[in-house]
Amino acid sequence: MIKLTTKSIEISTQGFTDIIDITPNLRHILKEENYQEGQMLVFIAGSTAALTTVEFEPGLEKDLKEMFEEWIPMNKRYHHNEAWHDGNGYAHVRSSMLKPSLTIPFSDAQLRLGTWQQVVFIDFDNRQRNRNLIVQLMGKVQ
Amino acid sequence: MIKLTTKSIEISTQGFTDIIDITPNLRHILKEENYQEGQMLVFIAGSTAALTTVEFEPGLEKDLKEMFEEWIPMNKRYHHNEAWHDGNGYAHVRSSMLKPSLTIPFSDAQLRLGTWQQVVFIDFDNRQRNRNLIVQLMGKVQ
Amino acid sequence: MIKLTTKSIEISTQGFTDIIDITPNLRHILKEENYQEGQMLVFIAGSTAALTTVEFEPGLEKDLKEMFEEWIPMNKRYHHNEAWHDGNGYAHVRSSMLKPSLTIPFSDAQLRLGTWQQVVFIDFDNRQRNRNLIVQLMGKVQ
Repeated sequence: MIKLTTKSIEISTQGFTDIIDITPNLRHILKEENYQEGQMLVFIAGSTAALTTVEFEPGLEKDLKEMFEEWIPMNKRYHHNEAWHDGNGYAHVRSSMLKPSLTIPFSDAQLRLGTWQQVVFIDFDNRQRNRNLIVQLMGKVQ
Repeated sequence: MIKLTTKSIEISTQGFTDIIDITPNLRHILKEENYQEGQMLVFIAGSTAALTTVEFEPGLEKDLKEMFEEWIPMNKRYHHNEAWHDGNGYAHVRSSMLKPSLTIPFSDAQLRLGTWQQVVFIDFDNRQRNRNLIVQLMGKVQ
Repeated sequence: MIKLTTKSIEISTQGFTDIIDITPNLRHILKEENYQEGQMLVFIAGSTAALTTVEFEPGLEKDLKEMFEEWIPMNKRYHHNEAWHDGNGYAHVRSSMLKPSLTIPFSDAQLRLGTWQQVVFIDFDNRQRNRNLIVQLMGKVQ
């Protein structure tokens, strides 16, 4: 029988394209809830952050930050900033491109990630934030 | 018990990176179908449009359009255009990058979006289109 | 009643942004498993490859490859390469941006893709690889 559980993760971020490995948090939830086979949806309710996977090591952290800065620079002119004066137009655009959701399959009670593949939450906003990620499990339990 | 429902949304677009807030349509479906907790998958069957979320306000609409035009310009040379002569090579490339699907969790019969986060459908094609979005609900009903 | 099945697809790739149409493989699994209505999650366990959809024709294959090369060039300086010396920093960055998962709805036992929309696996790595894609079905069977 298929079961459904909605949980959340609280994390503090530094903003400014802070890249945070949330894989341990996700593994903890999977173990705690005793799911065996199914899908884990991770979602950020907010428009200045996003989710993806990466081999989480300091070199790639820098590479991703540099790529975002070249592609969608912080200090360009953004129409959003002219209206709202909060200076985080770049963060909204980056977030819309990377998108707020990620679905990861699991089986044998293990997330089916690669050995060098971590799930990361990226906070693009221009200030420290306390974030609440939604984690929803759907699948078979023991 | 987990239930599954497949619905659709019809929308008319202007094309040319038309960004349309479909959040009211999605909320309407959720209410109509009486789901309490689960996931909503939104999908566009087509290769010149995509889905994401954004704080939907006129400044960010312009920012997103300008970013797409800088990144993947309309009037560059595309191999697709040489073969098909429909001039929408840029729309295909943009669509492949942003991707055709988005999954949003809901609980207490509410989409778990941020206050300033709307779900948008972006039509990149170079003409007016009538689009049919697939919306699939999976979860618990009342 | 909702059923869940986890399968996999083995594919050989040439790497270097090899774009492979996996739609026939996905249709085969859907038919074999007799699902009628639901969702198919496709996921790559690995950090140098990704999934999306595209109108799969030679012109767009070239357009996508050229776009990735302009956006995230192979021969730029990457911090990842300095640490690991495997020269595939570009592949990691491209993969993180396009993301490792894709969910496709189906109904009447058919994937709800557009006529000119194929599901593609893109291998960005800088060598030939044998890849194992995870395909998870959730939905109603006959």
